[in-house]
Amino acid sequence: MMSLVLPTEDLRRRLEPRLDNTRIQVWRPGAPRPPADPVDLLVLPYMIPAAELRALAELRVSVVQSQTLGYDHVAEHLPAGIAYCNAVGVHEGSTAELAVALVLAAQRGIPEAVRDADRGRWHHRRRPGLAGKRVLVVGAGGVGSELARRLAPFDAHVDLVARTPRAGVHGPADLPGLLAGADVVVIAVPLRAETRGLVDAGFLARMRDGALLVNVARGEVVDTGALVAELRRGRLRAALDVTDPEPLPPGHPLWDLPGVLITPHAGGDADAMDERIDRVVVEQVRRLRAGEPPRNVVAGSRPGRVSAGGGGGRR
Amino acid sequence: MMSLVLPTEDLRRRLEPRLDNTRIQVWRPGAPRPPADPVDLLVLPYMIPAAELRALAELRVSVVQSQTLGYDHVAEHLPAGIAYCNAVGVHEGSTAELAVALVLAAQRGIPEAVRDADRGRWHHRRRPGLAGKRVLVVGAGGVGSELARRLAPFDAHVDLVARTPRAGVHGPADLPGLLAGADVVVIAVPLRAETRGLVDAGFLARMRDGALLVNVARGEVVDTGALVAELRRGRLRAALDVTDPEPLPPGHPLWDLPGVLITPHAGGDADAMDERIDRVVVEQVRRLRAGEPPRNVVAGSRPGRVSAGGGGGRR
Repeated sequence: MMSLVLPTEDLRRRLEPRLDNTRIQVWRPGAPRPPADPVDLLVLPYMIPAAELRALAELRVSVVQSQTLGYDHVAEHLPAGIAYCNAVGVHEGSTAELAVALVLAAQRGIPEAVRDADRGRWHHRRRPGLAGKRVLVVGAGGVGSELARRLAPFDAHVDLVARTPRAGVHGPADLPGLLAGADVVVIAVPLRAETRGLVDAGFLARMRDGALLVNVARGEVVDTGALVAELRRGRLRAALDVTDPEPLPPGHPLWDLPGVLITPHAGGDADAMDERIDRVVVEQVRRLRAGEPPRNVVAGSRPGRVSAGGGGGRR
Repeated sequence: MMSLVLPTEDLRRRLEPRLDNTRIQVWRPGAPRPPADPVDLLVLPYMIPAAELRALAELRVSVVQSQTLGYDHVAEHLPAGIAYCNAVGVHEGSTAELAVALVLAAQRGIPEAVRDADRGRWHHRRRPGLAGKRVLVVGAGGVGSELARRLAPFDAHVDLVARTPRAGVHGPADLPGLLAGADVVVIAVPLRAETRGLVDAGFLARMRDGALLVNVARGEVVDTGALVAELRRGRLRAALDVTDPEPLPPGHPLWDLPGVLITPHAGGDADAMDERIDRVVVEQVRRLRAGEPPRNVVAGSRPGRVSAGGGGGRR
């Protein structure tokens, strides 16, 4: 019998009817009484701080499934002997959807309309729109490509740039030129050593006057101080779903600068997420039971023995 | 030589280099000293009240080109003997773009995020999103079809309904059933006798709890009192680019009800509009000079004699 640990009763209620021959326990890192028996698969709470992974050292657990796509800081905190899988296919569409929402809201003046409405004021201004504009998407992974697909019918010119140039995707050498021509720049890269601080003063200086920077990746990809300096001058606009620090504390200058739209790291969290995470867990259980390697191991050891099924998988 | 009247110096500056052998005057209805010579084509100001068309009785003008798509109330006020052309191809994309902005902003919580940001508050809530939802677009003309094209990559189920059922478009008989199943209903019909008050108490009652009504058509298509009653109960949400009355006066209940997002009739007005209206005027001048009928005559007489070119056109 497989042993599965889930972080919430809600997830147990959703998954129990879909999983036969599986012992399900509800527990989350940091809670008392960790499961004493060997655990084949443990699903983490959504958006848990990476440091809490240290609590997994108290368990005998083989594979951990996160509910997020990003896995910055995981390798530093994950106890040895555990394979960590990220949630591929769960949040990319939802994050791309929020990126389009941020681009359109900023271009078409939704924040100004909300503030006008709160004062009972009907105030028409001409707005720039998206049609005819140049949009640069930095990052061509799941989020970047889902975003490009959603932007396609808006009559804008969309360029993708990524580490590895390929058909339809520019390489890093093209970045300076593309930045200078873009009306909207969307950051959709994972946080890695090479992307930390990628959007620094030099990157921002290349952007044209009045351009919009959108960040749906991780706050630390952008140098907050350099961005604040550009926003203070009124030279750039920004729409940020992620910030550094995060959560953004009361009194932080980003809250009050003109031309800034901030959402509270809501990219992946729309209600389409539930069905998608359920599918990921059901598929991981199936694979482990069949003796196949789990999907999307991005940190920790490759999995060893699995209590049910044949020998441990490799990938 | 063609005689052309334009409403602004800006438009003259843009069009003059593109038009040979054309006498251009700048004048707008209601201004002093209307042109005394026969005018082949007069371009109206953007969003002029229909009653101001009465001032055209002082001119000898054959064809009038509006800068808007809707032409409600035009027939009541247009002096006899003038052909009135609406601006087809200028605003549909921009209006559809704003409709997507309103849908995404309402679904993903942009108004709440703006209000939280103004209080320096980072407050994460789960939001419904667009993926997996059912969107009903009422109206399958220029705006409706441009909207359907833009919604296609968002993994939502999109239905169109219109007067005349055809491939990919439901007829009126399907409307009640579609309304009951929709998470989002977008109104994109022209204002006509049959569409005035189309969205009445019965229409709204068919919508499911928590559904979003989006209006990018004309305010009078919706019965404001019936909508206010549903919003007051918290049963529906609304995102309105057009209202009845319009502009919405200070103190109107729509400003303060929960779940309402209002933009100030900004649908057609994004900066992509300029190039598109220029193209419409250049093409109308070309047609009149060639003795062809003007495009998109939607009110008034079919054009008669044109000073340059052959006999008057028919269509």
